[in-house]
Amino acid sequence: MPYQSPVQEMRFLLDKVAGFEAVRATDRFAEATPDMVEAILTEAGKMCDEVLAPLQRAGDLHPAMLDNGVVRTPPGFAEGYRAIAEGGWIGMSAHPDNGGLGLPMTLTNAVNDMMCGACLALQMNPLMTQGQIEALEHHADTEIKAIYLPKLISGDWCGTMNLTEPQAGSDVGALRTRAEPNGDGTYALTGQKIYITWADNDFTENVCHLVLARLPDAPKGTRGISLFMVPRRIPDKDGNPGARNSLRVVSLEHKMGLHGSPTAVMDYDGATGWLVGEPQGGMAAMFTMMNNARLGVGTHGIGVAEGAYQQALAHAKDRKQGKTGGTGAIVEHPDVRRMLATMKADTFAARALAFANAVAIDLGTATEDPAWQARAALLTPITKTFGTETGIRVAELGVQVHGGMGYIEETGAAQYCRDVRVSAIYEGTNGIQAIDLVGRKMSDGGEAAIAMIDEICEGADAAKGALPDLARDVYEAAETLRESVEWLGAREMDDRLAGAVPFLMGFARVLGGHYHLSAARHGDDGHARLARFYITRLLPEHAAHLAEARAGAADLMSLTLDDLGA
Amino acid sequence: MPYQSPVQEMRFLLDKVAGFEAVRATDRFAEATPDMVEAILTEAGKMCDEVLAPLQRAGDLHPAMLDNGVVRTPPGFAEGYRAIAEGGWIGMSAHPDNGGLGLPMTLTNAVNDMMCGACLALQMNPLMTQGQIEALEHHADTEIKAIYLPKLISGDWCGTMNLTEPQAGSDVGALRTRAEPNGDGTYALTGQKIYITWADNDFTENVCHLVLARLPDAPKGTRGISLFMVPRRIPDKDGNPGARNSLRVVSLEHKMGLHGSPTAVMDYDGATGWLVGEPQGGMAAMFTMMNNARLGVGTHGIGVAEGAYQQALAHAKDRKQGKTGGTGAIVEHPDVRRMLATMKADTFAARALAFANAVAIDLGTATEDPAWQARAALLTPITKTFGTETGIRVAELGVQVHGGMGYIEETGAAQYCRDVRVSAIYEGTNGIQAIDLVGRKMSDGGEAAIAMIDEICEGADAAKGALPDLARDVYEAAETLRESVEWLGAREMDDRLAGAVPFLMGFARVLGGHYHLSAARHGDDGHARLARFYITRLLPEHAAHLAEARAGAADLMSLTLDDLGA
Repeated sequence: MPYQSPVQEMRFLLDKVAGFEAVRATDRFAEATPDMVEAILTEAGKMCDEVLAPLQRAGDLHPAMLDNGVVRTPPGFAEGYRAIAEGGWIGMSAHPDNGGLGLPMTLTNAVNDMMCGACLALQMNPLMTQGQIEALEHHADTEIKAIYLPKLISGDWCGTMNLTEPQAGSDVGALRTRAEPNGDGTYALTGQKIYITWADNDFTENVCHLVLARLPDAPKGTRGISLFMVPRRIPDKDGNPGARNSLRVVSLEHKMGLHGSPTAVMDYDGATGWLVGEPQGGMAAMFTMMNNARLGVGTHGIGVAEGAYQQALAHAKDRKQGKTGGTGAIVEHPDVRRMLATMKADTFAARALAFANAVAIDLGTATEDPAWQARAALLTPITKTFGTETGIRVAELGVQVHGGMGYIEETGAAQYCRDVRVSAIYEGTNGIQAIDLVGRKMSDGGEAAIAMIDEICEGADAAKGALPDLARDVYEAAETLRESVEWLGAREMDDRLAGAVPFLMGFARVLGGHYHLSAARHGDDGHARLARFYITRLLPEHAAHLAEARAGAADLMSLTLDDLGA
Repeated sequence: MPYQSPVQEMRFLLDKVAGFEAVRATDRFAEATPDMVEAILTEAGKMCDEVLAPLQRAGDLHPAMLDNGVVRTPPGFAEGYRAIAEGGWIGMSAHPDNGGLGLPMTLTNAVNDMMCGACLALQMNPLMTQGQIEALEHHADTEIKAIYLPKLISGDWCGTMNLTEPQAGSDVGALRTRAEPNGDGTYALTGQKIYITWADNDFTENVCHLVLARLPDAPKGTRGISLFMVPRRIPDKDGNPGARNSLRVVSLEHKMGLHGSPTAVMDYDGATGWLVGEPQGGMAAMFTMMNNARLGVGTHGIGVAEGAYQQALAHAKDRKQGKTGGTGAIVEHPDVRRMLATMKADTFAARALAFANAVAIDLGTATEDPAWQARAALLTPITKTFGTETGIRVAELGVQVHGGMGYIEETGAAQYCRDVRVSAIYEGTNGIQAIDLVGRKMSDGGEAAIAMIDEICEGADAAKGALPDLARDVYEAAETLRESVEWLGAREMDDRLAGAVPFLMGFARVLGGHYHLSAARHGDDGHARLARFYITRLLPEHAAHLAEARAGAADLMSLTLDDLGA
C-alpha cells in the first residue's frame, strides 16, 4: 500500500489535542478557519500521495551525483520539486509582504510532516529554504529581502545553511571561513564547508547559501561569527541570476541513507557575499532559524515513522504465517500487534508534541506573550529529540514486522531506517538538544518546565472522572517528572549534563501520556484504546529514564579512559 | 583504530563471571586448561585482527555477485576463509572422531565473537557450517558422517541451511519442497528456497545444503518435514566432489547490509539428496542445531557491538569539539561518556550472558545433568534476543558518537548498523525467541527460570557486604522478575504472548545486573565502576519491561484493525 497522508489524524490532533483553536482565535491567524485547514491538508496530502511518494525509492536507487561540477538529481525529483513550489508549500508561513501566505507555522509543520512521510530526501530541500526565509525575514536588510525572499518563497531559488567545517561540528565557534570586505559593501568569502544539504541541484535557477564566517579581527568563538548571503549566481540589476560566483561543490558524500539528497563539501574561493544582520551577529541569526528548523527535523522523524508504520501495517494485514484467529494474517499475533501498536502510539505522541510545539510558536508570534515563547523554546529540543528517536525506533520496528523481507532493500522498510538515522544528528545532535534543555531552557529556574507539568496535572485531574486509572498514572508520572526538574535545578551543570538525554526522554514520555490522555477524553473509543496501550505499556519507561537522569555525574565521570578501553 | 579482539576481557569473563572452571573440571573438557584457553584466544584473536578485520569494508563495497550461475565473493574473502579453515576454527568443537578438536562450545563461541567483530559477513559462512556439523553429528548415519564431516570440519566444503520458502518463514510447517524416493536410497528434491545464507561461493570445493522437505504423503505442518543432505556436487566413490547436482542459485538479494555474504534464492529441480535422520524427523534435527545456532546469532550482535564500540571510543578519544577538561577530546563530555559507558556496559552484559549460556551447554553435554540442559535451553532465546538487540543499539550509539561522520559510509560506523540489523530477524525472529521463552522454555512450570532467579539472589546476598547498594538493587530486581515469572505462569497463553518480548528483555536486564555484580566482586575497580554504571543507570529499565510484560492481552487485542488503521 503506498503512503497516504494522515489528514484525518492531523485534523483531530489540531482540534482536540494540540490546542489549535487558540491560534485561529488570534487576529494574526484568523484566516486559519477549519475549512481552510481542511482544504490545505487535503490538497497537500494529495500532492504527497500522488506526486512525492512515488519518488521515494527512485531517490534511494539513483543517488544525486556530481557531474562535471553540477549536481544531477534523481529521476522525477525536478517534477516533485515543482509540485511543491507551485503548490505554494514552501513559503506558506512566510510573510505576505514578500509573497508568502502568512499561515501558521503549525500548518507548515503538518504539511512538512506529510512531505517527510512521502519522500524525505526531497523534502530536505524546501525545509532548508524555509529556514532561510525565516532568517532573512528577521535579520536581512530591505534590499536583500526584496531580492531574495520572493524567489525563495516561489521556489524559483532555493536556500542552504553553511555552518559546519571539518574542525567545527557541534562546536560551531571553531569555524575558520573568512569574510574580507571588498570595499563596495560586499565581502569576499574564503573557506571550506562540509555537510551542506542540497548545496546544488538541476532544477532551480539559483541556490542561495547562508554562510557563517569570520570578519577580519573578529573575536574568537561564537561571538566572532557573522552571517552572509552567498548566491551561486549573483543577481543582476533586475534581480535575475547573473554571473557565476566563486564557489563550487567539491564532492558529495556517500551516506547511509537520503541518497536522493545531495550532501556536499563546498569550497568558497573569494566568493562574493552580503552581510545578513549585524557584524558578529551570526549566531543570533542562526538561532532564530535553528529553533524552528529543529521542529522541522523532529518532524522528519515523525513523517518517516508514519510512512514506516503504514507500510508495516499493510504487510501485517496481508502476510499469512502460522495459526491465528481473525483475518488469519500476522497482525493477529499478539507480538506483531504489540509492535504495530507501539509504532502507532509513539508516532501519535510525537506528532501531538510537534503540533503543540508549533502551536506555541504561533501563539508566541501572534500574542508576543513570553509564556508562549518560553513554552515553544522548552518543547523544541524535546520535539527534535523525541521525534527523531521515534522515527528511528518506529522504522526499526517496521523492519522487524516485515521479518526477512524487511532486510531486503526492494521492500522499502530498510530505507526508512537508513534515511531517518541522521535526523538524530543534524541540526544539533540529540545530545546537544538535551544540553539545551537542561541548560539554556531551564535557566529560568525551571519555570517553563513546571508550567508544563502543572498543565499535565490539570489535564489528569480533568480526566479523573472518566478515566480514573489512566489519569492517575499520568498524574503520578508528572509528579516524578516534577521531582526530576527540581533535582536538576538544584544541581551543578555537570550533574545536569550527565542526565540530560535521559531527562529529555523521560520528559517526552510523560508528555506523550498527557497528549494520549487528552485524546482519550476528546476522541473516540479507538483513541481511548490507544491511550490505554500507551499509558499502560510505554509510559512506565519514564521512571527508568528519570532514575538515570538523577544518577549524577560523579559515578559516570569516575569511569576512566582506562576503564572504557580495557 | 582497527578492531582488536578483546582477549583479556574474554578471559576475565570465562574465569570470573561465566563459571568456565566447571567446564574444565569435567572429564570431557579437561584439556581446556587456562594455558590452552589463553593460546586459543590469542591465536584466534591475531587472525581476526590481522586477516579478517581488513576485509570488513571490502565486503560492503564489493557485494557478492552472481556471475553466470556462480557466486563471486568480495576481494580477500577467499584468503580470509582459508585462514579460518586452516586455523581449525570451524570444527574446534566438533567431535575428534571426525577430525574436530572436541573443545568446549564456550571457546567456539568466544572465537566466533571475535570473528563477528572483525568481519561478520564472512563469519556467517563458518557459522552455517558449524550448525551443519552439529546436525550431522547428532542425526546422520555413519556413511554420511564419514563422507561429509571431515570435509566440513577442515573447511574444504561448507554447509548451508535451507528452511525458508516464500510462504513459509516463521511458519516453517507451511513449506512445500518435495522429496521423492529415487528407489536407490536417494531422493529427488524439487522446490524453491529463499534467504539461503552463503548458498554458494568461489572458494570451497563443494557446498552442502541441508534442506527441509516433505516426503510423499507426509502429514501437514511441522510433523511432516524431513531433512536432506543435498550437495552442490555429488561425492564420488572416493568422497571427492563429482557430478553437478540439479540445483542452482537463482538470484542474490539486495540487502540493507552484510553485502559480502551472499543471500540466495535456490532452485532444486529433482536434485539428488540423502535423508538425514528419521523420515518426518526434520524439525527435531533442525531444533538440535538451531538452539546452538541461536547462541551463535546472539553472538553476532555481541561481536558487532564490540567492533562498533571500539571504533566509537577511538573516535571519541581523538575528536576535539568544544571546551572539555582532561584530554580535550569529546570523550570528556558527560553525554559522550554516557553513550560510551552504555555501549560498554551492555556489551559486557550480553557477552557474559552468552558465555554463561555456552558454559551451560557444555556442562549439559559433559554431565548430561538435566538442570544444566534446562539452564542452557532457558538462556538461549534470551541470549539470541538480548545479544542482537544490544548489537543494534550499540551500533546505533556508535553512529551517534561519531556525529555527522557516523552517517558517512567511509567511516564504517553505519556499516555496523546495517550489517547487524538482520540478526534480530534470522534464526527465529526475536518475537519467536520470546514466544519460545514464555512457552516451551516455561513449560516446566517455570522451574528453570526460578532456579536462575534463585542464583541471582544468592549472588546478591554474597555481594551484600562489599557492595550493599548494588547488591540490594540486583536483589530487588530479581524479586520483581520472580513475580513476573509467577504471574506469567498463572496466565493463559495469550497473556504470555502479549508480554513475551518485554518479559524477555526484562529478564535480560536483570541477568545483566547479576553478571555485572559478579564482575564487581571478582574483578578490579574498573569492573566495579562499570557495574555501578550498569546497575544505577541501565538496570532500572527492567521495571518498565516487566510492567509491560504483565499488561496482559485483553487491552492489546482490543485495539481493532480499524483503530490501527485510523
